[in-house]
Amino acid sequence: MKKHNFSAGPCILPQEVFKEASQAILDFNDSGLSILEISHRSPDFVAVMDEAQALALELLGLKGKGYKALFLQGGASMQFLMVAYNLLEEKAAYLNTGTWSTKAIKEAKLFGEIEEVASSKDKNFNYIPKSYSIPDEVDYFHCTSNNTIFGTQMKEFPSTASPLVCDMSSDIFSRELDFSKFDLIYAGAQKNMGPAGTTLVVVKEDILGKVSREIPSMMSYSTHIGKDSMFNTPAVYAVYVSMLTLRWIKANGGIKAMEERNQKKAELIYNEIDRNPLFKGFAANEDRSVMNATFNLVDESHKDTFDQMWKGAGVNGLNGHRSVGGYRASMYNALPIESVQVVVDLMKELEKKI
Amino acid sequence: MKKHNFSAGPCILPQEVFKEASQAILDFNDSGLSILEISHRSPDFVAVMDEAQALALELLGLKGKGYKALFLQGGASMQFLMVAYNLLEEKAAYLNTGTWSTKAIKEAKLFGEIEEVASSKDKNFNYIPKSYSIPDEVDYFHCTSNNTIFGTQMKEFPSTASPLVCDMSSDIFSRELDFSKFDLIYAGAQKNMGPAGTTLVVVKEDILGKVSREIPSMMSYSTHIGKDSMFNTPAVYAVYVSMLTLRWIKANGGIKAMEERNQKKAELIYNEIDRNPLFKGFAANEDRSVMNATFNLVDESHKDTFDQMWKGAGVNGLNGHRSVGGYRASMYNALPIESVQVVVDLMKELEKKI
Repeated sequence: MKKHNFSAGPCILPQEVFKEASQAILDFNDSGLSILEISHRSPDFVAVMDEAQALALELLGLKGKGYKALFLQGGASMQFLMVAYNLLEEKAAYLNTGTWSTKAIKEAKLFGEIEEVASSKDKNFNYIPKSYSIPDEVDYFHCTSNNTIFGTQMKEFPSTASPLVCDMSSDIFSRELDFSKFDLIYAGAQKNMGPAGTTLVVVKEDILGKVSREIPSMMSYSTHIGKDSMFNTPAVYAVYVSMLTLRWIKANGGIKAMEERNQKKAELIYNEIDRNPLFKGFAANEDRSVMNATFNLVDESHKDTFDQMWKGAGVNGLNGHRSVGGYRASMYNALPIESVQVVVDLMKELEKKI
Repeated sequence: MKKHNFSAGPCILPQEVFKEASQAILDFNDSGLSILEISHRSPDFVAVMDEAQALALELLGLKGKGYKALFLQGGASMQFLMVAYNLLEEKAAYLNTGTWSTKAIKEAKLFGEIEEVASSKDKNFNYIPKSYSIPDEVDYFHCTSNNTIFGTQMKEFPSTASPLVCDMSSDIFSRELDFSKFDLIYAGAQKNMGPAGTTLVVVKEDILGKVSREIPSMMSYSTHIGKDSMFNTPAVYAVYVSMLTLRWIKANGGIKAMEERNQKKAELIYNEIDRNPLFKGFAANEDRSVMNATFNLVDESHKDTFDQMWKGAGVNGLNGHRSVGGYRASMYNALPIESVQVVVDLMKELEKKI
């Protein structure tokens, strides 16, 4: 049976990518060797790393604008720490829009003073705070563009006097933005970019080198920039599959085309959530995520029936996160609209049944 | 043409592992989904992580002895930092046997006083220092069991009053040792255990929690132990392939059988290095690594001839590291003795030619 994969991450990647990625395990570039057994210093892999970095900057429209793209290890969780290590001298401002922002704030507090400029914790993070002010004198302002767990997404980003840092783990490469507004963007690969195990960091070089502390080599963006993400052995395979996925994004129309597809998928499911009396959306309407639609049953007693229906239809990963309950449809770039239609049809079917 | 892969790392893994690893990219456990697109919290992947951790402890003979096995990100380079973060309160002792020890010392110095108890830098690290004493009152003693670049290997480990910490990146699972002598062992996967992108840390729990500093979550062994290596998204695929490789080691007789095979391969090449008047070994005889044999031409003018010969014979990765020059035959667990025979035959052939 065909699977419809709504997993929140690691998540669906393009089928073409899986095919090429599987082949490279047996024989990479007709070398007679697996990509898993070659040196990361070999010309074939150096070319992969170079292409991945170049594609990331190109797709984001940041080529030649003073940015470097890095593929590091440790996920966004490591970036919570590295951002503070590299940029926090005295005080930074954070917007708290959910679980990941909260964790980022916790780690940064070990390195300096943190001003939480606003938080949506009062309503279990079901909205994005809007009227807040960012002090001028902070070292940087940090926000999370998309909140996978709560299904909210920032539609606008503030103008800041200080560097703008953004965790875009769950919506990078999914919508057009003026990425040059940002000074540092980081994203765990395992949503729109690749498999788990590598993290993209796009950093404007001129914001670095301004803190007085001595930074351990592995924590320092400058170290990794100086060695083109090869200071130590990178996550070879995760970078390779990310490169394949970035190629796929480019070949399929770039971020603009991804955004159009994603918008259609989101409209399809949100329209049904709003129309169908059995369901209600979790996130505030104006802050709804195009990536992760969170919704609940109005009457929880239908849960077993609906769960049986979607599990029987080959749908995977539709359960909501425990802190929200209900359902979450994660609709990353590679998810076809047909899969969303399957869920929408099931929602209609449930309505008829009840 | 069949390839003979002597790459120093990432390096050869068993062919059976490549086959299963390639298949899982297309369809993992007959789930209809790629292993790259499933949640790390899914029962199928949790089972992989559990098995990998259990196999690591079992193969090392450390089951039920107070140790935890973790699969983290960042390579041994991240462990240089994490060891110091978690264990260094005032002063630690380090044995300097090469490039990696030197880097470990550099990172640890940011956290406390480091006493370098001995170093073989005076002879470009071609031997392992032996008569040194470790102060009783240090927080731990750190050493590197095998030096990939220089081709030296510690045959004996000191008894210490303080915790014994060892970087076993390039020889773990290759030889029998009393692993219970060690309090913390770490190893980047990309030699005998798996692909690049994950790092095994085996730590005796009772050595933790003794430093006064506040440790960032991602740097803390206790964080990762508390979440069974799932504090944040792990490097799913690298852990999976490591698990397959650990299964292969167990199915093929465990570490004992690996050691026997590795000894035979090492004897084969070292005998030829010693016999053949055109070559000389780099490392001191008594400290020669069973994993990485480093050797040079007596007369460098034969270099082009020999290079052409081995490259033409499908041999990969035989070039020595720039700091040693000459050649390096890395003979990890998965390398068949037939590949070593090919190189030995080429060395004999060169002798006849000259």
